[in-house]
Amino acid sequence: MVYFDNAATTWPKPEAVYQAVDYCMRKQGANPGRSGHHMALAAGQIIMEARDLIAKLFNIPEPSQVIFTLNATEALNLGIKGLLKPGDHVITSSLEHNAVARPLETLRSQGIEVSKLSTSVSNGVQPAQVEAAIKENTKLVIINHASNVTGAINPIREIGEVTRARNLLFLVDSAQTAGSFPIDVQAMGIDLLAFAGHKGLMGPQGVGGLYLRKDLRLTPLKEGGTGTNSESLFQPETSPERYESGTLNTPGIAGLASGIKFILQEGIERIKEKERILTERLLKGLEAIPGVSVYGPSLGIERAPVISFNIEGMEPSEVSFILDQSFEIASRPGLHCAPDAHESIGTLSKQGTVRFSLGYFNTIGEVDFCLEAIAGIAEESKF
Amino acid sequence: MVYFDNAATTWPKPEAVYQAVDYCMRKQGANPGRSGHHMALAAGQIIMEARDLIAKLFNIPEPSQVIFTLNATEALNLGIKGLLKPGDHVITSSLEHNAVARPLETLRSQGIEVSKLSTSVSNGVQPAQVEAAIKENTKLVIINHASNVTGAINPIREIGEVTRARNLLFLVDSAQTAGSFPIDVQAMGIDLLAFAGHKGLMGPQGVGGLYLRKDLRLTPLKEGGTGTNSESLFQPETSPERYESGTLNTPGIAGLASGIKFILQEGIERIKEKERILTERLLKGLEAIPGVSVYGPSLGIERAPVISFNIEGMEPSEVSFILDQSFEIASRPGLHCAPDAHESIGTLSKQGTVRFSLGYFNTIGEVDFCLEAIAGIAEESKF
Repeated sequence: MVYFDNAATTWPKPEAVYQAVDYCMRKQGANPGRSGHHMALAAGQIIMEARDLIAKLFNIPEPSQVIFTLNATEALNLGIKGLLKPGDHVITSSLEHNAVARPLETLRSQGIEVSKLSTSVSNGVQPAQVEAAIKENTKLVIINHASNVTGAINPIREIGEVTRARNLLFLVDSAQTAGSFPIDVQAMGIDLLAFAGHKGLMGPQGVGGLYLRKDLRLTPLKEGGTGTNSESLFQPETSPERYESGTLNTPGIAGLASGIKFILQEGIERIKEKERILTERLLKGLEAIPGVSVYGPSLGIERAPVISFNIEGMEPSEVSFILDQSFEIASRPGLHCAPDAHESIGTLSKQGTVRFSLGYFNTIGEVDFCLEAIAGIAEESKF
Repeated sequence: MVYFDNAATTWPKPEAVYQAVDYCMRKQGANPGRSGHHMALAAGQIIMEARDLIAKLFNIPEPSQVIFTLNATEALNLGIKGLLKPGDHVITSSLEHNAVARPLETLRSQGIEVSKLSTSVSNGVQPAQVEAAIKENTKLVIINHASNVTGAINPIREIGEVTRARNLLFLVDSAQTAGSFPIDVQAMGIDLLAFAGHKGLMGPQGVGGLYLRKDLRLTPLKEGGTGTNSESLFQPETSPERYESGTLNTPGIAGLASGIKFILQEGIERIKEKERILTERLLKGLEAIPGVSVYGPSLGIERAPVISFNIEGMEPSEVSFILDQSFEIASRPGLHCAPDAHESIGTLSKQGTVRFSLGYFNTIGEVDFCLEAIAGIAEESKF
């Protein structure tokens, strides 16, 4: 099987990730941060180690500013709903995932103003656009690091300079880049960073998280047991407890920690370079096939390892179906939970695109095999 | 090691649970409900099977009414915040966990009225108390099936008769009973049932859920990608998609499905009976040790396999520390995230209690070993 659906979930994981999850369940299976016995402390240790590793990866000053959630969607909801109050204005882009677009649509009906910047498919959101959209009541800017539809990279550092200069908060959705692109929250001026554990960070599904700048305080999405300040009927003020009510996904977090260790060992630059080479080869090959339209940044422009395309006269779901059935190639057709992005590239009416998304464990052989398959399908489609 | 902390997280799990999690990550590791390729469908199949099993276990008419969350705390927050609006009145008890008490305290400040029924330690919340607390604006009654501090069982079926007769909604927190006690949402008049996956249901940490009666509609806690209706900027109306934004914890759900299969094979009655025998033996033994005070229902009264006690002149954390260090017995000291319950039994000022919570894999030998340990500690404490 050729797995080109890494933007949804990376697969396979490093062997050590599977083993860490299993070991955690079998040997460290108690409740972290609750009881004080040996096994509970071992579980707590896993969580602490994972926070440390994430802090190291993203240059986060203090591990306590790493909050674990079910997934990046929850992290984004927590950041967005935890910060914004009626009367606030938020700036975002038309390339965002529904995990940003839908919460904002809900808040719009509660008196929060939303400006969506139209983005250039090749260059992403421009800092000057952000600058121009700022109003007196602007509180927050939300931009993804890379589009999950086109792979377009946004200039986070430059946008961070604008938000810092204008004293705005900056929330970055790193679902498509964490683990594959260097992210430094301090150097890039990021105040909140949402990440998915099961994509580039190579952890299992069921873990995501939010980095929250130390002096910021959010309204939690949920209240409940935190294992601290239990005598109080109010949530503790301290992070991360304030935001992590209930039992965490300790086995998942153990797997995530193992995934990040793998990334730190391999080196982000090496991962990025391998994915770049594979993606460029695939892109170049696709662009050369008659009847194939590729959307997003052109060859040579830096991008996440995500490619959206269509074959003339065929629906995306039809192409993906043939890829799966006849070639055992896993792709994802449709809107990829990002309708605004498809509107931007003109594929909303075409029922979206076929998306190939590559990962560190893909090979050049797989890319070439896939290009042959697409060439064959495009050729067939003429008849 | 003797593991008596099953009310926090059950351990160990059935061998098949570990294997299901591992198999899912290795062989079914794609994104459920998103792409349409083989592996994504296999992942989707796991989620469907788990919903089916939960529906079967709790006699839920349609599997689509089972919503997966990170944990029971999230399920309770979703039910509570999703239903209640300013001006509504809610009836609850003083034996609830902070996963209920804290969200209600937050809502109180938003104009929601809360009545907390004082409960009898032995008999739990009485249906007549609920009846007497009903007001014109009462919308919801929230009661746990069993207290996580005392093990006291609440008469859910009888309370359900009251809520049904008075046309109120009934939300039950089954964190301490699901998997160990029969639960039938239809026969018991339960409209919403919150459950933890990692306790009696024998799944891994990182999964919980909410049953929601078919005609009820909640405001979601989070919006985002649902894999359906992706073209819309609003959440879909259909359950469970409306409430499950972002990628689910598929490996955790695979483990939960395997845990429930184990429960259905063994039979709830057998599990309940084994836990009852162990708990009764432990309770009887503890009550006979001079200097030991046990809180909660007396011998012979039905209870969850949870026992809270103190040794005269010792702090709970001291007792738990000695149990862990000298005897390798895992217990949990403190307030167990339920301060109201400790106030009810008079242990709030004593820094709580020591809690033993038993599981299906505990043995009579472990109970007897533990009783000897406690007798020794109590004897020593006199000097």
